[in-house]
Amino acid sequence: MSGWVVIAGLGPGADALVTPEVTAAVAEATDIVGYIPYVARIAPRDGLTLHASDNRVELDRAQHALRMAQAGRRVVVVSSGDPGVFAMAAAVFEAVEAGPAAWRALDIRVLPGITAMLAAAARVGAPLGHDFCAINLSDNLKPWALIEKRLALAVEADFAMAFYNPRSKARPEGFGRALTLLQEACGDARPMIFARAVSTPDEHIRIVPLPDATPDMADMRTVVILGASNTRVIDGAARPMVYTPRSVPADGSVPV
Amino acid sequence: MSGWVVIAGLGPGADALVTPEVTAAVAEATDIVGYIPYVARIAPRDGLTLHASDNRVELDRAQHALRMAQAGRRVVVVSSGDPGVFAMAAAVFEAVEAGPAAWRALDIRVLPGITAMLAAAARVGAPLGHDFCAINLSDNLKPWALIEKRLALAVEADFAMAFYNPRSKARPEGFGRALTLLQEACGDARPMIFARAVSTPDEHIRIVPLPDATPDMADMRTVVILGASNTRVIDGAARPMVYTPRSVPADGSVPV
Repeated sequence: MSGWVVIAGLGPGADALVTPEVTAAVAEATDIVGYIPYVARIAPRDGLTLHASDNRVELDRAQHALRMAQAGRRVVVVSSGDPGVFAMAAAVFEAVEAGPAAWRALDIRVLPGITAMLAAAARVGAPLGHDFCAINLSDNLKPWALIEKRLALAVEADFAMAFYNPRSKARPEGFGRALTLLQEACGDARPMIFARAVSTPDEHIRIVPLPDATPDMADMRTVVILGASNTRVIDGAARPMVYTPRSVPADGSVPV
Repeated sequence: MSGWVVIAGLGPGADALVTPEVTAAVAEATDIVGYIPYVARIAPRDGLTLHASDNRVELDRAQHALRMAQAGRRVVVVSSGDPGVFAMAAAVFEAVEAGPAAWRALDIRVLPGITAMLAAAARVGAPLGHDFCAINLSDNLKPWALIEKRLALAVEADFAMAFYNPRSKARPEGFGRALTLLQEACGDARPMIFARAVSTPDEHIRIVPLPDATPDMADMRTVVILGASNTRVIDGAARPMVYTPRSVPADGSVPV
């Protein structure tokens, strides 16, 4: 039997946000590979081996999956959210390119998932309803100066912004520096959304004006969304309603 | 019985990419509201009224949904992809803000979906595997100068980019101008991906070096992805493998 690797997105947490395509791939798998908390979301069954590994070993994990597929196993590499957004898909292709030529002939597929920023945006309205960007705030794999450059250009472009990995125990300082940069560059009170563990029992959502945002509002399970200059908060609504209008007037000014 | 409005994302086309959460909402609905081809994806049944409307009447459609919910109906507003990404969610909240105060008390929820750029990215690997932006190339609701400004800043930030609504019959010229700007500003042969009707029987994917991209490669059913400066195409692979590495070296140079 020929093996394969599927890199699958489990969505942000709730089973109701896992696509049927991903559920079907997991049902056909012989092996599940991934970071411990994501593998823990897969129900054990006969014939299925769960290979849970720690954080920060993405390339080892990818190589392990590829070697098993080469040996005829049906391997699902699980990511939270979407596997192509700051998750395992890029790591698997990096391993393929650096690995033996035979890996290029393997059956490797990516199955999309609901990424954290879209689940978080949906909870509060439509803050990403106009042009936006997504930035990984971890400087584990890129220089901090590049993050600051991208933040400044994103403000200049007036993108709404989604920030992944804002803060971890190993990187307690960066998010505060990012916040200071954004507060100074934006110079307004546009809403910032802290969405922790969306769609899980630990879900917690907080919406604050940008000047009131503080670093402790984020942790490693939080995705942060910052509005564009024209993002609106609807007052007196039954539940949070934050949205970025679809239109920008011809003079480029902020609609009221 | 109290009414509600759910703004739901049907994903890019395949039923296997519709989340169980959205399927459940449709099963509880009394009314489906949306653009003709999206409403056509909902199976008719007794007790369910389908309200299909033409393109470019988003606010009318939103007001219709809100009025029905106020009258006690259970209304699902359907979007393709994710409703918060260049789709109906922002239009509904615009209508709420401009409408009667009672609409702010309505039960309005947004259910995320697999947006086109993530489905397209998954088909070819992980081109959005690092920081990226999403830009709507339609100038129906914003000035073209703002689009050009955002494109130039996105190149400077070295984002991977996803472009929605690149081209329509009513706007045949804009995408050519965007391509020329990108070709000149990037000055390299990074891959551009044209993904048409992903996950449907009409799916067609084309990957070309940016200098070879031409306006006719896109139509209104195409999402376009442009790599960052370090996005890689793996040669000799069994299927397309395009990815943006997770890391950028400390000097900011392009990894080889």
